[in-house]
Amino acid sequence: MQKSLSVYDSDGSTFAPLVVIELVSETKEEAIAWLLNRVRDKQQDGGDGDGFLSMAECQYIIKHELDNLRAKDEAHVPGYPKMKLYPGKSVIRRMQSKGILVQVFPLHEKEELKRLSFSWFKKIKLSFQPLDDIRHYFGEGMALYFGFLEYFTLALIPMALIGIPYYLFDWEDYDKFTVFAGFNLVWCTVILELWKRLSASLAYGWGTLSRKKAFEEPRPGFHGVLGVNPVTGRAEPLYSNAKRQLRIYLVSVPFVLLCLYLSLYVMMIYFDMEGWALMIHDEEPTFWTGLLLFIPSIIYAVVIEIMNLIYRYAAEFLTGWENHRLESTFQNHLVLKVLVFNFFNCFASLFYIAFVMQDMVLLRQSLATLLITSQILNQIMEAFLPYWLQRRRNKKAHKRMIKTMEDKELPLSEQVKLEADMSTYLGTFDDYLELFLLFGYVSLFSCVYPLAAVLVVLNNVTEVYSDAFKMCKVFKRPFSEPAANIGVWQLAFEAMSVIAVVTNCALIGMSPKVKSYFPESETQLILWVVGFEHFLLASKFILTFVIPDVPKHIQIKLSRLEFESLEALKKRVKHFGKDKLQNLG
Amino acid sequence: MQKSLSVYDSDGSTFAPLVVIELVSETKEEAIAWLLNRVRDKQQDGGDGDGFLSMAECQYIIKHELDNLRAKDEAHVPGYPKMKLYPGKSVIRRMQSKGILVQVFPLHEKEELKRLSFSWFKKIKLSFQPLDDIRHYFGEGMALYFGFLEYFTLALIPMALIGIPYYLFDWEDYDKFTVFAGFNLVWCTVILELWKRLSASLAYGWGTLSRKKAFEEPRPGFHGVLGVNPVTGRAEPLYSNAKRQLRIYLVSVPFVLLCLYLSLYVMMIYFDMEGWALMIHDEEPTFWTGLLLFIPSIIYAVVIEIMNLIYRYAAEFLTGWENHRLESTFQNHLVLKVLVFNFFNCFASLFYIAFVMQDMVLLRQSLATLLITSQILNQIMEAFLPYWLQRRRNKKAHKRMIKTMEDKELPLSEQVKLEADMSTYLGTFDDYLELFLLFGYVSLFSCVYPLAAVLVVLNNVTEVYSDAFKMCKVFKRPFSEPAANIGVWQLAFEAMSVIAVVTNCALIGMSPKVKSYFPESETQLILWVVGFEHFLLASKFILTFVIPDVPKHIQIKLSRLEFESLEALKKRVKHFGKDKLQNLG
Repeated sequence: MQKSLSVYDSDGSTFAPLVVIELVSETKEEAIAWLLNRVRDKQQDGGDGDGFLSMAECQYIIKHELDNLRAKDEAHVPGYPKMKLYPGKSVIRRMQSKGILVQVFPLHEKEELKRLSFSWFKKIKLSFQPLDDIRHYFGEGMALYFGFLEYFTLALIPMALIGIPYYLFDWEDYDKFTVFAGFNLVWCTVILELWKRLSASLAYGWGTLSRKKAFEEPRPGFHGVLGVNPVTGRAEPLYSNAKRQLRIYLVSVPFVLLCLYLSLYVMMIYFDMEGWALMIHDEEPTFWTGLLLFIPSIIYAVVIEIMNLIYRYAAEFLTGWENHRLESTFQNHLVLKVLVFNFFNCFASLFYIAFVMQDMVLLRQSLATLLITSQILNQIMEAFLPYWLQRRRNKKAHKRMIKTMEDKELPLSEQVKLEADMSTYLGTFDDYLELFLLFGYVSLFSCVYPLAAVLVVLNNVTEVYSDAFKMCKVFKRPFSEPAANIGVWQLAFEAMSVIAVVTNCALIGMSPKVKSYFPESETQLILWVVGFEHFLLASKFILTFVIPDVPKHIQIKLSRLEFESLEALKKRVKHFGKDKLQNLG
Repeated sequence: MQKSLSVYDSDGSTFAPLVVIELVSETKEEAIAWLLNRVRDKQQDGGDGDGFLSMAECQYIIKHELDNLRAKDEAHVPGYPKMKLYPGKSVIRRMQSKGILVQVFPLHEKEELKRLSFSWFKKIKLSFQPLDDIRHYFGEGMALYFGFLEYFTLALIPMALIGIPYYLFDWEDYDKFTVFAGFNLVWCTVILELWKRLSASLAYGWGTLSRKKAFEEPRPGFHGVLGVNPVTGRAEPLYSNAKRQLRIYLVSVPFVLLCLYLSLYVMMIYFDMEGWALMIHDEEPTFWTGLLLFIPSIIYAVVIEIMNLIYRYAAEFLTGWENHRLESTFQNHLVLKVLVFNFFNCFASLFYIAFVMQDMVLLRQSLATLLITSQILNQIMEAFLPYWLQRRRNKKAHKRMIKTMEDKELPLSEQVKLEADMSTYLGTFDDYLELFLLFGYVSLFSCVYPLAAVLVVLNNVTEVYSDAFKMCKVFKRPFSEPAANIGVWQLAFEAMSVIAVVTNCALIGMSPKVKSYFPESETQLILWVVGFEHFLLASKFILTFVIPDVPKHIQIKLSRLEFESLEALKKRVKHFGKDKLQNLG
């Protein structure tokens, strides 16, 4: 059915296959021969890296080389006169977009995977995750995600511990939440600062901390009129920035605004449903009408999830259509679009209940329902659905795969076929997005529903296991990405923590207890709360400056590295001078 | 009276003297001989740099080498058994602190100086400053200061243009200031963002933009117990961080707080005086009692300036005593101390009048008096006082110096004597501080006194001339500092612009016109103003992210540089590989 060729099979000896390139079955022989030749040319340029590099690093290098396999003087793909090429065009990308090349993916390594799964999720005992092993197998980007997930869960535990007695003893005492809101304020600032330091320690250990960003090539999907790149001087598609700005401001921005309006509209329907349920319950309160009260929130939570999902695809399509030249710009625009909508979609109703309706009972009920429903849905969508789909798709093959994982003596061709059929992991984006929303629920409103932290801890513990499981068993092995930090997500979480400060201050100002301190004048109360909030925001920014992002001991190591390289340079320069003198004398 | 030796006089031929080291007159011969030897040893290590480097750069290199002239195995300064040395101790610093070495300073170059002064401040016609020439003669740090001064003045002109008719026609109409406050808000955000881009363009032209920070040696004044530096492995004085923190939190912080309290106390005395003057005026209003109303503000302004001056020295002493290892940390702590106090000292009374007393007439009067008095005092203190002092000190020598500037054929020894007696320029700190306070007056309160911008523009125009004059005629030539931006001052100005947003929003909220929109509820008004302010602050931060700090065309040039160095590296690696093969074959 499909033809597979592996990059490193040219010498015929025993070797560990790293990456698979899958072509459609009827591919012409001359195209295959040509592609093989071009890949081998590349191969002779680079080193082999046996043993010196981790497997994830080798695969990253191969990925990079394949992405940069560019047409030289070929006018078209051999055997396919209609598939035009021009010097500098990415070969893999053209073959992929024209449908000859099905996919490129790295292979799982059974032995390593077995060891990793065992230390990661197969043993029951409570322990930290094997981040170094994860990094070795999946690369730094993935390891940082799991490191962050673990850190976030641990950071939530004090919150959860305070939340439980709070929840148990003060269920109906809305006044007490000021203490919790105050704790919330400090918590969300401190944990993000500490994470930066932890992340720097991890990245230092993996050697990616002071990594200079590689020179960015245009992303594979980028297209335009052939021109000369002003930086490299190479022939390359160029796309006018003005056109891109027009697309962004005339299409993307209105689209996002329209979606926000739709979300607002759905929210209003939810409030109507809520009022209708309340009316029925008030007319003749029974157990069943009590249950009915939760139905609107559950439906709304499901609708929110569906809207998020649809919007996610629309945003990806739109951002691709904006035709950004670099992958990093593409990612930034995508993240911005998705974050704005998801934030609005998930939290608008809660803000409305809290500050316009000022109904703390409804806020608590709505928050709890949203949180629990979305967690359940997420677990289903993320781990069980792909697993189940795949199971259904090829029950037979799957059985063989399960066997493979235990029995390592399956022939290579079988393994490649099996893995080619596994789902593709689309990157850490959705996983971070989920954590971001959970962080929002906890940091914004957990003072009115202290159990939120407990629920999120429980969710995260299962999340660790289901994410680990899906990475090892459900998905094709993803290409690894070197990373020094969690990138744009650090910024997103910090923005959320600023919003959390504002929200919690407002909630504190609305509590009856605080109000009772200013019985004569509401103006005085508001001015005090606003003053307090400004003070907190200022402290937050000062804290961000004062706490160093890199721990002291790592700073010293980095400076030593810098100093030593400077000294080596000095010696080299002196040496060079002497050599010159000898040549002259 | 004093013995002078110049670093580069060893070969006796004609040469351009760059730096002067002044020793006290009774210095022992053996110490002089030893120092000369040590300096010459250093000299042989380095290159000469004729023609390739600008004069400012040569002097910077000599300064750096002199600062890093460290004792090897000398136990003491030859001839002075009591002046102990240990390996690694800075020789120049020890000789300076023990009083043998009076000063080290670079020499003015008459021809260059003449040309520079002519294009800078001698011609009357309106033109931009010769930033490139300033940079060539005084280095990038100074050129950036003058560039910023010029930019700030130009940026104020629209403000001043709006201010004049405003002032002329709406003198008593307090309502109209909301428009001006709104303009203020946008103005102070935008100009700082644009300055970053302009500064990047300047620094790119001077080659300092992508300059990596040099490895920082301990600052000369740093002392401690001899130990091993964990980074360099060298013997070096170490000072425990805990001790330093104790000094900061137990001495410096209480001292700053005490000073703030004193400043508050003085402010209260000012308000008493103000009330007393008003009482006299109200009893029997004449022209003279009308004048009397301004007296308290004038006295207060003078007192503020004196307090700032005294505090400035105290802060420098305290920060030195805190014993920071690096010059950059020292500077940060000094700037922080001085900024906090100066901000409080200058603006506390205005904030009090605006928001506690809510007396806009007094605010306007107080602001005008403070601004005008402090400008006059500053001009006197900065340019005329040093000039006059020096004139008095050595009238004769000064006459000769004035002659020197015209007549270039004065013998070198005479020139050195003359320049050694000129005052020492203490760096751009005080100049930036003055601009910072002026920026504060304009951005915080100019909506109630629109002439403020006009006054500051006038002040800045004279400031350019008096600063240029003092750099060329009054002060010894300072050592140049390479710089890529205005450093910590960018941050300080941005912090001020955030405070300006908050202040202007509050002023808008207090205006009778805005109040009249919410006749029924003060709470509504405050909530709207706070909401508006949060929206503005959020936009400000988003703007800071969205506007790139480096203009596009310079980004392209930088990427090309990076790309070309990468390509060169690739070639080198290939070449290296071939060489290796040839060696093997």
